[in-house]
Amino acid sequence: MTQPPPRFAPAQRVSKFEQDVWSIFTPLAAETKAINLGQGFMNFGPPAVVQEAAKQALDTVEANQYSHPRGRPRLRQALAASYSPEFGRQLDPESEILVTAGANEAMFATFAGFLDEGSEVICMEPFFDQYLPNITMNGGKPVFVPLRAPEHAADQTISSEEWRLDIDELKSKITPRTKMIVLNTPHNPIGKVFSEDELRAIGKVAEEHDLIILTDEVYDRLYYPPLTKFPRIATLDGFWERTITVGSGGKSFASTGWRVGWLIGPAHLIQYSFAAQTRVVFCVNSPCQEAIAAGLEASLTQPLFQDQTKAYLTKRAKLAKVFDDLALPYTMPQGAYYILVNTAKIQYPKDYVFPDILHQRGDDFKMCYWLTKEIGVCCIPPSEFYTKDHWPLAKNYARFAFCKTDDVLDQAAERLLALKKYIV
Amino acid sequence: MTQPPPRFAPAQRVSKFEQDVWSIFTPLAAETKAINLGQGFMNFGPPAVVQEAAKQALDTVEANQYSHPRGRPRLRQALAASYSPEFGRQLDPESEILVTAGANEAMFATFAGFLDEGSEVICMEPFFDQYLPNITMNGGKPVFVPLRAPEHAADQTISSEEWRLDIDELKSKITPRTKMIVLNTPHNPIGKVFSEDELRAIGKVAEEHDLIILTDEVYDRLYYPPLTKFPRIATLDGFWERTITVGSGGKSFASTGWRVGWLIGPAHLIQYSFAAQTRVVFCVNSPCQEAIAAGLEASLTQPLFQDQTKAYLTKRAKLAKVFDDLALPYTMPQGAYYILVNTAKIQYPKDYVFPDILHQRGDDFKMCYWLTKEIGVCCIPPSEFYTKDHWPLAKNYARFAFCKTDDVLDQAAERLLALKKYIV
Repeated sequence: MTQPPPRFAPAQRVSKFEQDVWSIFTPLAAETKAINLGQGFMNFGPPAVVQEAAKQALDTVEANQYSHPRGRPRLRQALAASYSPEFGRQLDPESEILVTAGANEAMFATFAGFLDEGSEVICMEPFFDQYLPNITMNGGKPVFVPLRAPEHAADQTISSEEWRLDIDELKSKITPRTKMIVLNTPHNPIGKVFSEDELRAIGKVAEEHDLIILTDEVYDRLYYPPLTKFPRIATLDGFWERTITVGSGGKSFASTGWRVGWLIGPAHLIQYSFAAQTRVVFCVNSPCQEAIAAGLEASLTQPLFQDQTKAYLTKRAKLAKVFDDLALPYTMPQGAYYILVNTAKIQYPKDYVFPDILHQRGDDFKMCYWLTKEIGVCCIPPSEFYTKDHWPLAKNYARFAFCKTDDVLDQAAERLLALKKYIV
Repeated sequence: MTQPPPRFAPAQRVSKFEQDVWSIFTPLAAETKAINLGQGFMNFGPPAVVQEAAKQALDTVEANQYSHPRGRPRLRQALAASYSPEFGRQLDPESEILVTAGANEAMFATFAGFLDEGSEVICMEPFFDQYLPNITMNGGKPVFVPLRAPEHAADQTISSEEWRLDIDELKSKITPRTKMIVLNTPHNPIGKVFSEDELRAIGKVAEEHDLIILTDEVYDRLYYPPLTKFPRIATLDGFWERTITVGSGGKSFASTGWRVGWLIGPAHLIQYSFAAQTRVVFCVNSPCQEAIAAGLEASLTQPLFQDQTKAYLTKRAKLAKVFDDLALPYTMPQGAYYILVNTAKIQYPKDYVFPDILHQRGDDFKMCYWLTKEIGVCCIPPSEFYTKDHWPLAKNYARFAFCKTDDVLDQAAERLLALKKYIV
């Protein structure tokens, strides 16, 4: 490719972007015919009621045209009906709910709505990889505080609840420029569901410093027993007034390609996410909004989410069993659909040749590359979810997604058993 | 609404946004049961072939999940097949085409990919209202140069080609900080299709100062006889290497609510729009991408666009006839689906009471409000498409959209005839 003349140079905000992990591993999985447990998309479609509603919407005239930038009234009503009991308050579909072009754009619009040059945003490591560029593109500076696994996680399987945030460490990161704390629960890639006590402690810090809490709860419909309730920081101790909650139609209804997400929060915050989003995308795909509305409506009278959770429990058990059989320690997730496996005991051939591109990345990129190419199961290196300085924290981990049909998980399990001879 | 505490204050980039014209006039049209010739959406759906393809896509598994951030391969192939003859070159679907979440996000991502704090972007007035915040949100500074109507436009109907850009005036706006010129052809709201000579003159200025040309051609499939060809600046005099062209599935296939658009340009430019867009929305609605692909494929063997143009010619004639009957001068558009009417001769009652919100706007807001509420036909005040200093240029104009079914246009015509007694 010809180098562009200087006047065609990119903006600083995009000039330093690295190649993202997905554009390395998704094509790799395809080329090598690996089973893709890398990217968190389903190999099954949305529930029939949702799919049918999308088709019905396509048959109307107006559901093919622009929607209100806040979201279609039916979807905002359905979100209010579904989430008001969850939030323990009557949500106003006119001012407290915003439909977005997926959860990603929801967060982008919120950063665009609140961050100025130099505003600091506290993120917990590991973090979903898009947070970082979404913050920096809007002039913000991400500040990181780690979630730490207990020491025995190197030798034994633990529950995701054992990954902990050190509240004093969180406090130590706050400066006069701190504007926002980003939370993620159920957490990707750990699977941790923050407890009410943990959320209270975080919320108290936000309150003391008058910070906004942006909580990414896209996996809110996917948490597992013994949990009987999903704790939301927006419902605790008056934190509502400072909290914006992010949700996802794609994660809730197995339709990651529809790009329908939402924000829920007080009108005095949502208004600015709305101001940004109206200019970024103007509005969101109309027929799929109708379909997600139908799904939420159906969930009020049918056990859609309960059935989905049951199905995911089976999937989680299938994948966990392989790692048990291999005696590889992992983190058993309380929510979401990822298992973080400790790969320290896997030894790939010392003379294995990796492509150059991987040498500039964390060591876990090599392990995941080898697993994808030689074992035939694609997984994702979690150092993508850490800043460069902290890549070593991720070097012994690989993330496997179990949002796949049972037969695919069975096949993956079979392939993974071939790891046995590489385990020391 | 409670005022948020200072730490919840919005980012500067959104804090000065005014209420946009759509959120005033679209609800007004609904409340007053006016016929909405305001916003440019169709009251009919996409062609059957496109609609059916969307349904088929919904029935597959993978067209409900994430697409490649560049766009689905089938759509990029279809765009290459459809646009390569238009551009007179073989377009590479891997590097020269990017599928976006509508044309709006296409432009946002391009500004995000190229503008730094203080980068100047030249826009022609009137401009599509989203350009301004899309530029300023990304640190850019819009610099305006007007398209001017000839003096006799106040008394007689003219062709949109008579609106002209003064090339010396354009040159006078260029500074060392100028990065980009934004073009819009067919032009909204004027309907002007820039001639090859005009495009050559603009391109030459860009070349002399090594500027990027971002050309918004979302109405490229809608131009009217005697034009037999739609001139594209990207095809002229080697301007390809500096030009990014914006297209729209919504405008091409009557599906404004699907949010599928695209960018076409050289790889050395597209790569940075892509870098931004991957972070802003990650990817675009999958089933609707398949459907737009099907539409483009069908257009290679069926006269879809030709039939659509014929239908729009009838619509244009219907609306134009009313203004002829009323002896109101207007601009006959060469492309797109708007008629800009000169309203100077309409006199609404002097004691008519307007809501306060309109007093801070251009005079045309009042005229359009009165037309919507009292005549029952909603139209859009074009001062929304000018900077405040230049609002007076728009004070005698109103924009009417004719992307509506014939029966609705007939009804609108009937209502508009009631204007007769207010014309002096």
